[in-house]
Amino acid sequence: MSETGPTEAWTIRETTLTPDAPHTAPLRRSESVFALANGHIGLRGNLDEGVPSGMPGTYLNSLYEDRDLTYPEAGYAFPERTQTIVDAPNGKLIALTVDGERLDVRAGTLRRHERCLDLRAGTLRRDLEWVATSGAAVRVRSTRLVSFAHPSVAAIRYEVEALDRPVRIRIDSDLLANEAQPDQRDDPRASAVLDAPLRPLSHSPEVLLHRTRRSGIEVASAVTHRGTPVSTSSEPDRIRAGITTTLRPGTPLRLDKFLAYAWAEPDPVGKALADRDEAAELGFDVLLERQRAYLDDFWAGADVELDGDPQVQQGVRFSLFHVLQAGAQAGPHPIAAKGLTGNGYDGHVLWDTEAFVLPVLTYTHPACVGMALRWRHRTLNEARDRARELRLAGAAYPWRTIGGAECSGYWPAGTAALHVNADIAAAVLRYVAATGDEEFLRECGLEILAETARLWCRVAHADDDGVFHIAGVTGPDEYTALADDNLYTNLLARQNLLGAASHEGLLRAAGVSAGEIRDWRQVARGLHVPYADKRAVHEQHAGFTSLREWDFEQVKDDDYPLMLHFPYLNLYRQQVVKQADLVLGMMLHPEEFTAAEKLRNFIYYEARTVRDSSLSAPVQAVLAAETGHLDLAHDYLAEAALLDLRPGGESSGDGLHIAACAGVWIALVQGFGGFRDQDGRLSFAPRLPAHLPRLRFRLRHHESRLRVTVTPERATYEVTGDQITFAHHGSAVTLAHGQSTTLPIEPIETRPAPPSPRPPEARRPALRSPGLTG
Amino acid sequence: MSETGPTEAWTIRETTLTPDAPHTAPLRRSESVFALANGHIGLRGNLDEGVPSGMPGTYLNSLYEDRDLTYPEAGYAFPERTQTIVDAPNGKLIALTVDGERLDVRAGTLRRHERCLDLRAGTLRRDLEWVATSGAAVRVRSTRLVSFAHPSVAAIRYEVEALDRPVRIRIDSDLLANEAQPDQRDDPRASAVLDAPLRPLSHSPEVLLHRTRRSGIEVASAVTHRGTPVSTSSEPDRIRAGITTTLRPGTPLRLDKFLAYAWAEPDPVGKALADRDEAAELGFDVLLERQRAYLDDFWAGADVELDGDPQVQQGVRFSLFHVLQAGAQAGPHPIAAKGLTGNGYDGHVLWDTEAFVLPVLTYTHPACVGMALRWRHRTLNEARDRARELRLAGAAYPWRTIGGAECSGYWPAGTAALHVNADIAAAVLRYVAATGDEEFLRECGLEILAETARLWCRVAHADDDGVFHIAGVTGPDEYTALADDNLYTNLLARQNLLGAASHEGLLRAAGVSAGEIRDWRQVARGLHVPYADKRAVHEQHAGFTSLREWDFEQVKDDDYPLMLHFPYLNLYRQQVVKQADLVLGMMLHPEEFTAAEKLRNFIYYEARTVRDSSLSAPVQAVLAAETGHLDLAHDYLAEAALLDLRPGGESSGDGLHIAACAGVWIALVQGFGGFRDQDGRLSFAPRLPAHLPRLRFRLRHHESRLRVTVTPERATYEVTGDQITFAHHGSAVTLAHGQSTTLPIEPIETRPAPPSPRPPEARRPALRSPGLTG
Repeated sequence: MSETGPTEAWTIRETTLTPDAPHTAPLRRSESVFALANGHIGLRGNLDEGVPSGMPGTYLNSLYEDRDLTYPEAGYAFPERTQTIVDAPNGKLIALTVDGERLDVRAGTLRRHERCLDLRAGTLRRDLEWVATSGAAVRVRSTRLVSFAHPSVAAIRYEVEALDRPVRIRIDSDLLANEAQPDQRDDPRASAVLDAPLRPLSHSPEVLLHRTRRSGIEVASAVTHRGTPVSTSSEPDRIRAGITTTLRPGTPLRLDKFLAYAWAEPDPVGKALADRDEAAELGFDVLLERQRAYLDDFWAGADVELDGDPQVQQGVRFSLFHVLQAGAQAGPHPIAAKGLTGNGYDGHVLWDTEAFVLPVLTYTHPACVGMALRWRHRTLNEARDRARELRLAGAAYPWRTIGGAECSGYWPAGTAALHVNADIAAAVLRYVAATGDEEFLRECGLEILAETARLWCRVAHADDDGVFHIAGVTGPDEYTALADDNLYTNLLARQNLLGAASHEGLLRAAGVSAGEIRDWRQVARGLHVPYADKRAVHEQHAGFTSLREWDFEQVKDDDYPLMLHFPYLNLYRQQVVKQADLVLGMMLHPEEFTAAEKLRNFIYYEARTVRDSSLSAPVQAVLAAETGHLDLAHDYLAEAALLDLRPGGESSGDGLHIAACAGVWIALVQGFGGFRDQDGRLSFAPRLPAHLPRLRFRLRHHESRLRVTVTPERATYEVTGDQITFAHHGSAVTLAHGQSTTLPIEPIETRPAPPSPRPPEARRPALRSPGLTG
Repeated sequence: MSETGPTEAWTIRETTLTPDAPHTAPLRRSESVFALANGHIGLRGNLDEGVPSGMPGTYLNSLYEDRDLTYPEAGYAFPERTQTIVDAPNGKLIALTVDGERLDVRAGTLRRHERCLDLRAGTLRRDLEWVATSGAAVRVRSTRLVSFAHPSVAAIRYEVEALDRPVRIRIDSDLLANEAQPDQRDDPRASAVLDAPLRPLSHSPEVLLHRTRRSGIEVASAVTHRGTPVSTSSEPDRIRAGITTTLRPGTPLRLDKFLAYAWAEPDPVGKALADRDEAAELGFDVLLERQRAYLDDFWAGADVELDGDPQVQQGVRFSLFHVLQAGAQAGPHPIAAKGLTGNGYDGHVLWDTEAFVLPVLTYTHPACVGMALRWRHRTLNEARDRARELRLAGAAYPWRTIGGAECSGYWPAGTAALHVNADIAAAVLRYVAATGDEEFLRECGLEILAETARLWCRVAHADDDGVFHIAGVTGPDEYTALADDNLYTNLLARQNLLGAASHEGLLRAAGVSAGEIRDWRQVARGLHVPYADKRAVHEQHAGFTSLREWDFEQVKDDDYPLMLHFPYLNLYRQQVVKQADLVLGMMLHPEEFTAAEKLRNFIYYEARTVRDSSLSAPVQAVLAAETGHLDLAHDYLAEAALLDLRPGGESSGDGLHIAACAGVWIALVQGFGGFRDQDGRLSFAPRLPAHLPRLRFRLRHHESRLRVTVTPERATYEVTGDQITFAHHGSAVTLAHGQSTTLPIEPIETRPAPPSPRPPEARRPALRSPGLTG
């Protein structure tokens, strides 16, 4: 984030600010990067004093407002409403006045500036020296945390010190509702909602109570201060605590601020006050300790170490930290695509969660996976209603939502992506296989599996030869929508159907007929897997390889992402791929492809994939590694690991790419680690490029913990907890508690002059910026 | 329209009103049916007194307002604005007050009511007797016309008579701008535009001047009265002429009102006043005479007579009259889908015009076809810009527009229907071949042909075998969008390419390279014509016959139209056809199919076509007739002929289906008459069902006029003007001026037990209502 200093393994540090351009992308991005969250509440990394700000943000999971969707030309079952995450009352605000001048980094002199996100402490620390126009110099230090241990609680320690001479200061510590938002939306109706989303119901110097105007969700925001006596006042949208005093050098002032939020509860005010009081009673230092303890435990089970690439080392920890922040305490709410770091995608949940985030958490922090899938179960009725509305069967999970209702306003890249159903089913199957959580399976998983299977059974149809087809759906690649027999969709639908059928005993007991389960198996086994004989590759969908080849010559560098410069009309009918689709299918279903097919497919699609989605690079890294192209894998890994940290990563401004963060783990563990999990059977085929001396990662599986250390020559497996069996390059290994083994890495078979996978020239993996350091 | 009385051949008569439900569909529909227009201006058939009203409407061709389009999820090249026809100042209003009570058919007693649309006189006559609450009885007669001879002029003769005793009356004759509209739009932004579209600029008792708020079109509306002295006043949105007098029985009062409009002109006020004065000077009777003379000439060249079916006889004349009203004086503006009878489709022009309306006018009233196609030429630059925006080549004509810019808000059923380009090119080729209008060809036609050909050349791509494909486009059938190798599109694109290339000499002279023209021919000849061997039928698009069969069992009667009850997701991927698509291709390109193929194809698609578009029945009638299913052809003909006249035809409320009106002629002349025109070579294969004794129709071709009389046994051809050669059931016939010939009808070959075409059970041709009479 800064211009100087070495990449640090456990911190993200910023030492410069460009405060003169208050709404520029760098500031917005830093607010996302420095966001703190625990899955339940999230605070963007706004400056304590609130200005300058790219976009203020305080998010409470699933505190959303309803908003009408209107269409130039309406269509049946086009959703009429969407849900938009709203900015909750902002408790981060602590304004400082020095000699009558408000501290603003754009005025006076900023003598020193540092912000540091500490991935082990779970805090955002700030340290600045500022000289007012009067010449009075102060040092301000703040430490902010959003508590993993106390999910409703955030706290800030704020310290001010006079540096050269006594100074008169005033501190205004605010909890502010309906804060002004930057007007950056194209759609004026969206802005209207976001401008003042909360109707005030009551206020006191302790707590504000608001209600969202249309969705009717009540939210209580409580605040208190410790350390220094404050005078407080309240109005409908603000609680203010003030201190006016004279500071002498050497005697800093310290103020601890405790915030608690409660919403969608029977008694939000009571709950918020109780949580606030508990936090204040424990005190800031105890919250800090518990924060570190929580993270110590997380890192013990989840840390990934990579020697030889300090940028990626930092990137993977940063990414895992944000994945944890998105998911740790999300239950009973969902894990959104941006976590709680920004209002991008309106705060919606996408398939990203089940396809990228939950797999990582399944092996590193499985408790929150069960919660996230229970949320899907809680919204099953909305999915059933949607299936009925679509004249389908079972459940049709929404493409994007907060509360469960479909909020997608462009159906060819929304509702038509039926694969979200199978992605959810796959996450259920993976979680149950990896944890053995039978209670979840009985209470939630079975019903999800059965209802999603029913959708596929209705959607698929048999041709004259009894081969089943799924026509007119959209796979992960949104540049080729409404296609027939999307291979990814068919493979995942098959898994969905067979996975549901695999629990036949429980399902029969729950009243599902034998005939229905037989149908699932029949459809699953008959589903078409399109293959182009002429090209000797699998087809992303039936006919894909017969489409016109995309003319990369006509595309200028600033024509990416293509969807902003070419019409769908043009993209859909050509061989150009937004993101790994068939390649993701090969990662998730390696058993369907021979090694030679994987290589040929990878080379073919590599040349046609423009990676206009952040979900692509990690998957391409995995298949590059599997097919022996370790340098390319490393490049894609680096692209993924630095996505949100790279200067100029402007798309991070409205929130981090949480699924891409999970993708960094996937690129390392499934790529270089060669990790796969097929129905609970774990396997590894690790392989490191020679210039990376060591990779170490950790996995949880049932009651086992596995630590894997890979060097270019060999891999060491160490087990604690229950005995576990897995495969190393195809050979079975069984290790009990305390045992370890070191095995050689099998060299990948070198074919005579193999063709290399090559991405399109203009879409080589992103180069690292020399300015990018920790 | 009425409950009683025989079907009349030359009039549409209404003798009852249901005035107590002012906004109901019947009233709205009658306003469309009784609309008067000349292509330049149009007046809906609102009652003179303005109330009750389904929707007031005065339309000036291409007087539109701009309106923003916003999308829940925007996409590249999604149009950001649309154009909406606005309601121009209403000069139809003549309010009568009798003994202090306003005449309103909902109050007092309506003793007699009759409205009559006279298809030869070109007038709407009204005759009513009304008794006020006071007991005073009056007779009111009005005659309204929109002049074919004087395109800017409308006129009304209004007569009031006291019936039993002298009555005190007051007449307020208004020209009223920004009249209140019924609030029936889903989209509040549309209502806002339509509520007060015109900003007043100046006013006098002679003329109002307004300007549309965003599109900035100035419109002058002038009025004057003759027959009785009036006192006039004006305000920004109204000119009022008043008469207060006492009427004695036997001495009716007569008022002639003359209106003239001018817009999008350098001096609209001067033009409107001049046209008004000219009309007033000629007087109402002369306008009536010229109206009849214009129509006598039209009917002499266009009338279709059908003995044995008075409903269809009336329907075809009604339909031809409205086609004429839509197109007669449209130039330099387009012919909209609803003509000038309502604001449906926002007043937009669709492909309907070139594919249905212009073919009919080409053979009946060709002068206005040249004008309509010159409008397409005038908007060629917008089409070029659109092609560039779409990253295509040449021109991409809009799916819907008024002024030339694409206004479609749902691209899969809009922009993706590239066939509109070929439909326009086909209309150009047909018009030039049928008229020999070389001036049009050189000035406009060539450029249209070349630019549309360029689009196809860019869109098509060759496979490994050199076969050309057009992928991911939408044909006429909007229930199967974004399909590969839509057969209709490919056939029309081929015609477009070869038709352009056929003018190679002129094009070369205009600078088009030989290489480019060679490319057009190569692509044209290589275009794929999809055929399903297994089913032994052509495919609507590649793979159509492999899609899931539509389950008609699950569809309830009130599930039609399907698009209002099933998602596109579901419709697109099943074998269900909204409207004739491949069947339309067979009508336009009979040379591509053997008779046996036509029969098999027709039967196959007949079983899958739900006719949710009014453009379908006429085409199905043509192919039913061609394949020898004359009763089915008659049923479809009747459905088409009665579409806008049938009680309950609620979709006519916002304007008539002008293309379907043209379709009635097509069903008769191309169906029973078996008329085809291939590159100027005319052919007939007439065939009448035994229960219809006689069909007679007229055609113009260059300087020839041909009258064809068909009976079940024989056909008689009579020629005036230049000599003409055509085919009768495949045999060449040449006739010179004054000559005629009578030839036997070839019986259609009866195969052993041929399968019959059957529409889906629930979608049999519409039954005639017993209440439907003229």
